[in-house]
Amino acid sequence: MEHVIAEWESQERAVRARLRPAGAPPPTMSLAALSGLQVLEAIFAGDWPPPAMGDTLDFLPIRVEPGLAVFQGRPSPRHYNPMGTVHGGWFATLLDSAVGCAVHSTLPAGSAYTTLEIKVNIVRPLTDAVPLVRAEGKVVHTGRQVGTAEGRIVGPDGKLYAHATTTCLIFESSPRAR
Amino acid sequence: MEHVIAEWESQERAVRARLRPAGAPPPTMSLAALSGLQVLEAIFAGDWPPPAMGDTLDFLPIRVEPGLAVFQGRPSPRHYNPMGTVHGGWFATLLDSAVGCAVHSTLPAGSAYTTLEIKVNIVRPLTDAVPLVRAEGKVVHTGRQVGTAEGRIVGPDGKLYAHATTTCLIFESSPRAR
Amino acid sequence: MEHVIAEWESQERAVRARLRPAGAPPPTMSLAALSGLQVLEAIFAGDWPPPAMGDTLDFLPIRVEPGLAVFQGRPSPRHYNPMGTVHGGWFATLLDSAVGCAVHSTLPAGSAYTTLEIKVNIVRPLTDAVPLVRAEGKVVHTGRQVGTAEGRIVGPDGKLYAHATTTCLIFESSPRAR
Amino acid sequence: MEHVIAEWESQERAVRARLRPAGAPPPTMSLAALSGLQVLEAIFAGDWPPPAMGDTLDFLPIRVEPGLAVFQGRPSPRHYNPMGTVHGGWFATLLDSAVGCAVHSTLPAGSAYTTLEIKVNIVRPLTDAVPLVRAEGKVVHTGRQVGTAEGRIVGPDGKLYAHATTTCLIFESSPRAR
Repeated sequence: MEHVIAEWESQERAVRARLRPAGAPPPTMSLAALSGLQVLEAIFAGDWPPPAMGDTLDFLPIRVEPGLAVFQGRPSPRHYNPMGTVHGGWFATLLDSAVGCAVHSTLPAGSAYTTLEIKVNIVRPLTDAVPLVRAEGKVVHTGRQVGTAEGRIVGPDGKLYAHATTTCLIFESSPRAR
Repeated sequence: MEHVIAEWESQERAVRARLRPAGAPPPTMSLAALSGLQVLEAIFAGDWPPPAMGDTLDFLPIRVEPGLAVFQGRPSPRHYNPMGTVHGGWFATLLDSAVGCAVHSTLPAGSAYTTLEIKVNIVRPLTDAVPLVRAEGKVVHTGRQVGTAEGRIVGPDGKLYAHATTTCLIFESSPRAR
Repeated sequence: MEHVIAEWESQERAVRARLRPAGAPPPTMSLAALSGLQVLEAIFAGDWPPPAMGDTLDFLPIRVEPGLAVFQGRPSPRHYNPMGTVHGGWFATLLDSAVGCAVHSTLPAGSAYTTLEIKVNIVRPLTDAVPLVRAEGKVVHTGRQVGTAEGRIVGPDGKLYAHATTTCLIFESSPRAR
Repeated sequence: MEHVIAEWESQERAVRARLRPAGAPPPTMSLAALSGLQVLEAIFAGDWPPPAMGDTLDFLPIRVEPGLAVFQGRPSPRHYNPMGTVHGGWFATLLDSAVGCAVHSTLPAGSAYTTLEIKVNIVRPLTDAVPLVRAEGKVVHTGRQVGTAEGRIVGPDGKLYAHATTTCLIFESSPRAR
């Protein structure tokens, strides 16, 4: 497990080094002509800012491929519920990011998506005794108007903490198409 | 709507004035002999700290009655996804708090609960153009081992932003009972 | 409770007397120019056949209003799982009918819908010791492209057996609009 | 695809030849000392009746292994909704059977389960133009008190029609244990 943690931390440092810093000036590029995968690659290349919610809740994207998205998060007492374990909302946030990006990664230029619903199962409590977890989202189905995806949060030892499925609405984002 | 916002802000100030401050020493009281409602009332009385996640994501409990819990949150760019609207995880966090506390409020002393799953529908995007929203959770069913609840996030004008249902496992928390 | 059962059975007989019989010739009318509510009223008027699944699983529509739909079903050993209680799928079928029709009842002529997902909570086992149950569906949100609804199955004594929420996709059904 | 259909029909005939016929006398064996897998094997061996709901809705179990259950169903106009496609409740019934049995197959003697909730995504309409479909359920997590599983309905050509996740409560079924 130590080996996995070291690898995950190394990958996180490599991603952080390329991400657009929080205080950077707003990007001047336009996303309109990019596919979903190109938008996500622009985030990894530092050309587009990562989601603000990631700074707020200590998680970031680690890897995106067509139909797949992996986020990594650092459990902390700042994320606790009154029972002294990580709040269900933290699980939901990482999973929503992972499954939503998995759907996004399949969209052509001119398409956008919005999350209609997400269902999250929490199967094991989590504390900061686990230094890092990963949320991996995978597309289950994509159609013209609807995409579905599933996701899991696992620890460095492969333990499952939560899993989710989502339904996303896909629509045309280009002005002339509406 | 201005009137509602003023009232919600006033109620929030009143609650904050009583809540245990973030830096306060850990409480010495024990929760073991308290019912769920008494635990929640101890938070409102400043005898027990509110959830850390509330500070992190700008929300707090406003009101708890048997079978009902209301939380209030302040949408902010810190909660945004890359599309420039509030992240689905923020909705999920407020709703998870509201429906979980609604179930908690029905439990006798010696009982505890954990969230097995929550499903969240997002029906409208939210930005910080809406200064405050409320998440109201209500119990649907409680049995000996399982409780279910539903919740809604609404704005000061009554607009619905998201809704949820949850399934909670109820178990005996007292040491001798296990 | 006897009073309620008698009333529910009387209402069922009144509905059955008007429904199009299973062996009737296919209707010649077209649904294209009808609103959702008018389609549902055509079923109650015997101008359009009720769903075949209702005959197969012993349930039928009892009442539809804008945003509301009530179905009534008769639990039977034919619906049992191996544990000797009503199969979860029977609950899901009645609830899917109720919440889907609730959304349908809000649609103008030229619009149609399809169910994207439904989540069903089962909170109490059911056997044919309960002669009749009702599934009541209510719209929670309707937009241009998406509708959500919630539903509950209750017995004649008001006991809750199951509850559900659904997400429906709304689309234009008229040929020229596609 | 013809080859797959022939194989699925052949497997169905083989299972039907061993299943306890609908009119057979009630079995005299007791299930109390059997593990979940042994109960499911008793159904395949004709020692215990299959679920009545399977006869009512034209589906049956095809294969069960630890953590996995496969059901096969035959879409028919008897399962249609008013739109002329298979009712969402038919999908839910097959998926509930598959995911529930997947959890059941992992339980030791003296344990039983009940379905707390199931969420079903329907991603493609189905008619009797598809002669057979399969619902495959797989366990995601099992603990002492809770099990979760996921399932998919696919056609003979591998097309996905629906998918689901479930949460089950596990409890001791032996009288002295309660």
